Amino acid sequence: MNKLLIVARQYDDYRKLLAQAQLPALEITEDPAQASIILADPPRIAAYLERYPALRWLQSTYAGIDALIRPDIRQDYTLTNIRGHFGQLIAEYVMGYTLDHTRQLSLYRQQQSQAQWRRFPYSPLDKRTMVILGTGSIGTHLARVAKAFGLEVIGINRSGQTGETSFDRIYPLTQLADGLATADILVSTLPATTETDDLFNARTLSHCRNTLLFNVGRGNAVCEQGLLTAIEQGCVTHAYLDVFKQEPLNESHPFWQNPNITITPHIAAESFPEQVFEIFKANYQRYIQQQPMMYQVDFNRGY
Amino acid sequence: MNKLLIVARQYDDYRKLLAQAQLPALEITEDPAQASIILADPPRIAAYLERYPALRWLQSTYAGIDALIRPDIRQDYTLTNIRGHFGQLIAEYVMGYTLDHTRQLSLYRQQQSQAQWRRFPYSPLDKRTMVILGTGSIGTHLARVAKAFGLEVIGINRSGQTGETSFDRIYPLTQLADGLATADILVSTLPATTETDDLFNARTLSHCRNTLLFNVGRGNAVCEQGLLTAIEQGCVTHAYLDVFKQEPLNESHPFWQNPNITITPHIAAESFPEQVFEIFKANYQRYIQQQPMMYQVDFNRGY
Repeated sequence: MNKLLIVARQYDDYRKLLAQAQLPALEITEDPAQASIILADPPRIAAYLERYPALRWLQSTYAGIDALIRPDIRQDYTLTNIRGHFGQLIAEYVMGYTLDHTRQLSLYRQQQSQAQWRRFPYSPLDKRTMVILGTGSIGTHLARVAKAFGLEVIGINRSGQTGETSFDRIYPLTQLADGLATADILVSTLPATTETDDLFNARTLSHCRNTLLFNVGRGNAVCEQGLLTAIEQGCVTHAYLDVFKQEPLNESHPFWQNPNITITPHIAAESFPEQVFEIFKANYQRYIQQQPMMYQVDFNRGY
Repeated sequence: MNKLLIVARQYDDYRKLLAQAQLPALEITEDPAQASIILADPPRIAAYLERYPALRWLQSTYAGIDALIRPDIRQDYTLTNIRGHFGQLIAEYVMGYTLDHTRQLSLYRQQQSQAQWRRFPYSPLDKRTMVILGTGSIGTHLARVAKAFGLEVIGINRSGQTGETSFDRIYPLTQLADGLATADILVSTLPATTETDDLFNARTLSHCRNTLLFNVGRGNAVCEQGLLTAIEQGCVTHAYLDVFKQEPLNESHPFWQNPNITITPHIAAESFPEQVFEIFKANYQRYIQQQPMMYQVDFNRGY
């Protein structure tokens, strides 16, 4: 019998889904000493991993597992995260805010409150360029949706190569400046690694011109002071930030009051329990059959 | 020599584009008696068509030519309108407002003004159904973009048939009620004809449930009192109206103050002079070579 322990904000949802699924040879435990399988939100368990001596497999309920790959905590178990559905949600977020900006939704809302009928010029998206940092499943899905809007889409990754045809071009990270120089819309979907720390700073962002910047990856990628400088200099017209170096963002943080920054509380791509559980279920079948698991994280690469 | 007369809000832009293009055997005239070709915004010329005895071809700068197909005005000339680019703009409008609603952009904007970090549940678009009235170039383009977001897309037209594969299904207009019953998002791209008068009324809209309604076709299609009833009864959650029976919408109209109605001043798909002129140019070549012209309007069908 495999013993599963759940450490998640949506604990009740997962209990319900488990009861319905009736997975073979699996029971829920509340005893840390017995748990060989854990289904967990990474930030809720990272500090307490030592309490689970029997741990063999941890299924993250998040895509972002940076809390669990710090070198000072144990890595003697199989870690899997979730992928796949986030592309949809990220594409909704990025295109929603992009269109909110280009089609002036707020301006017309304000006009309506004054019963004003007045038109403002605008430009269609289909002549513009979106540059996406990260060409994994999220970046690829976003690229496909952006292409449907006629955007030119450039991907940037480590190698400058991809098997994906959803991008018009791929640049290697070493040509970041070239990519940024063409970006009307710039989207970071990057995971938190030491390589991505402060990747967007005053120097790199100085290559942008009137760019809409989205950070839907991890907060570490944006140098906060550098972003403020890039906004002041007109390199970045507006920044849409869903992730931050410290979350929740401190009440007194200057970002809150900046009219050129939109803050959302890490909701660009939520983990819906139903979708997380589908992955857990599929992985559990592989686990008991000792087959390779889906979405296994490489502790060295950090994703 | 062909004589062209321009009657358009963006007169100056068209003059400039004409000067650049240097079209053969064409000159601009201001003399109504001489004009054989007219480039015009339909509402600006409809009442004055009798002034142009030499008129042979009128290129509309709008897609909507209902002002020119009333039975009491002359139809003894070739009328062409513009198509093609509107699909892009309509798709931006519909998806922009849809995402504004489903991803709660206003709610998070309001939270930000109070430096509040709080998450709200939401659902992705990819389980929902969009029903599009009209399967012409606009409806088809919108369908393709909606499919990229994972929406199921149903088209409704007169025949229930289409050569287009962008729709998951097509219903004939006789099955309007079945279509409306499945619509999470309902979009009318219909032209103004007697058949589309008040097509969306209290009776037809009663088949909807929590539907987002978009009218980006013509104002005649929506029965105003019927829409208010459908909103009160929860059939329509929110209506996004870009076109109205009378434009501009009267300052005292109750729609302005209705929190479940978004009003935009007929900007969902603007005619950009550059794009209109491309069509005029291509049609002029066909005109002088006596070839069939693009986007010719059938005065009987009304589109």
